[in-house]
Amino acid sequence: MWPASLRDSPVKSVLLTNGDIDHIGGLLTLREKQPLTIFLTRALDDILSDNPVFSALDAACVKRVVCELNEWRDILPDMRAKFFAVPGKIPLFMETGGVETEMLGGQTVGVAVESNGARLLYVPGCSKLTAEIEAMADGADALFFDGTLYRDDEMIASGLGRKSGFRMGHMPMTGPGGSLELLAEMNVKRKIYIHMNNTNPVWRPGSAERETVERAGVEIGYDGMEVLL
Amino acid sequence: MWPASLRDSPVKSVLLTNGDIDHIGGLLTLREKQPLTIFLTRALDDILSDNPVFSALDAACVKRVVCELNEWRDILPDMRAKFFAVPGKIPLFMETGGVETEMLGGQTVGVAVESNGARLLYVPGCSKLTAEIEAMADGADALFFDGTLYRDDEMIASGLGRKSGFRMGHMPMTGPGGSLELLAEMNVKRKIYIHMNNTNPVWRPGSAERETVERAGVEIGYDGMEVLL
Repeated sequence: MWPASLRDSPVKSVLLTNGDIDHIGGLLTLREKQPLTIFLTRALDDILSDNPVFSALDAACVKRVVCELNEWRDILPDMRAKFFAVPGKIPLFMETGGVETEMLGGQTVGVAVESNGARLLYVPGCSKLTAEIEAMADGADALFFDGTLYRDDEMIASGLGRKSGFRMGHMPMTGPGGSLELLAEMNVKRKIYIHMNNTNPVWRPGSAERETVERAGVEIGYDGMEVLL
Repeated sequence: MWPASLRDSPVKSVLLTNGDIDHIGGLLTLREKQPLTIFLTRALDDILSDNPVFSALDAACVKRVVCELNEWRDILPDMRAKFFAVPGKIPLFMETGGVETEMLGGQTVGVAVESNGARLLYVPGCSKLTAEIEAMADGADALFFDGTLYRDDEMIASGLGRKSGFRMGHMPMTGPGGSLELLAEMNVKRKIYIHMNNTNPVWRPGSAERETVERAGVEIGYDGMEVLL
């Protein structure tokens, strides 16, 4: 709305893949009248609507585009994207008791992005790497995948929490039901772990865990990482 | 809840003085199971309750203490505080049309803090410096006061907004109804402007506006400022 030279943000579009605070909280710092389009599922739009604080994203300049699962949308010129269901759960702040951690719906989603013949998948939260996700990733140029924990009991073992990775809606990298073995077998050019918790030992340069991941052909993402496809 | 040596925060208490995002947004980054007490008015507690996202502040470790206006509360050993009404308005994200900008209630408040004989007032948002606030500040060791804008039409003149300072619930430093002349006359040891908008020319070292403020005996607060009373 205001001259780009005075206040500007390079963020033109946001694709929401989860309704928890680490995914939606940043929207509150994008509120200063910057034109912006938020692409999101109906379930995530409901979460924003249920929290009046998000009406700070003034509808006069911030457009919300509700997308169906598996529906391609043009998000920029020459770039399209679609959301797809990923096993997961509702946001922690909405939990009221027993929680379904392999829910398939619009609450936890991945996103596929295509541009000029390149294709990537972005899956920051996933409790189970299904055959459907594997099939969708087959032949992709990049797969960004949930690397929250290295071991399922990591939070408990470190004394920082009472929950397993699976309970938090995140499959661990290793151990039963881990993602690393599956990723290692996949036909994807670049496989990159993202969303690592600060308990994850892969953060430590030279750690045995980091070496295990890298030897399996998976990269460890980091803040400011740039990926050219 | 968890060992202080692994994850810790020095923040033991939070006193909320406003329900807008620049005041409540930070609570979402204090959510990782740190014991904490939030002191707030009924009106501000209602705002948090109306936004489910704030239930991320797990009631098992984050205590909310609803305070009446003008009621002293012990916030730490040897430290007490009370909220008092300050002319202001409801949060921007709750505005629906015409807005009362000199509302007196629990939506915009100041806080008085006393400890070991020292006394300070903290008033980050204020549309009118009333005789009641002046009387309360009389003889205080420090007054932190709303310094959002230097001129009432600053946002408009700079092309960054359509609203005057008064419309945003903030009296400007200078011009009709400005705070600087009033502060200059007040019997308070240290007077410190806080909450400056990034359009406020007092940020610029050596600016005429900064000099005007400092010559009137008022300091310009800054991130990381420490004040010993």
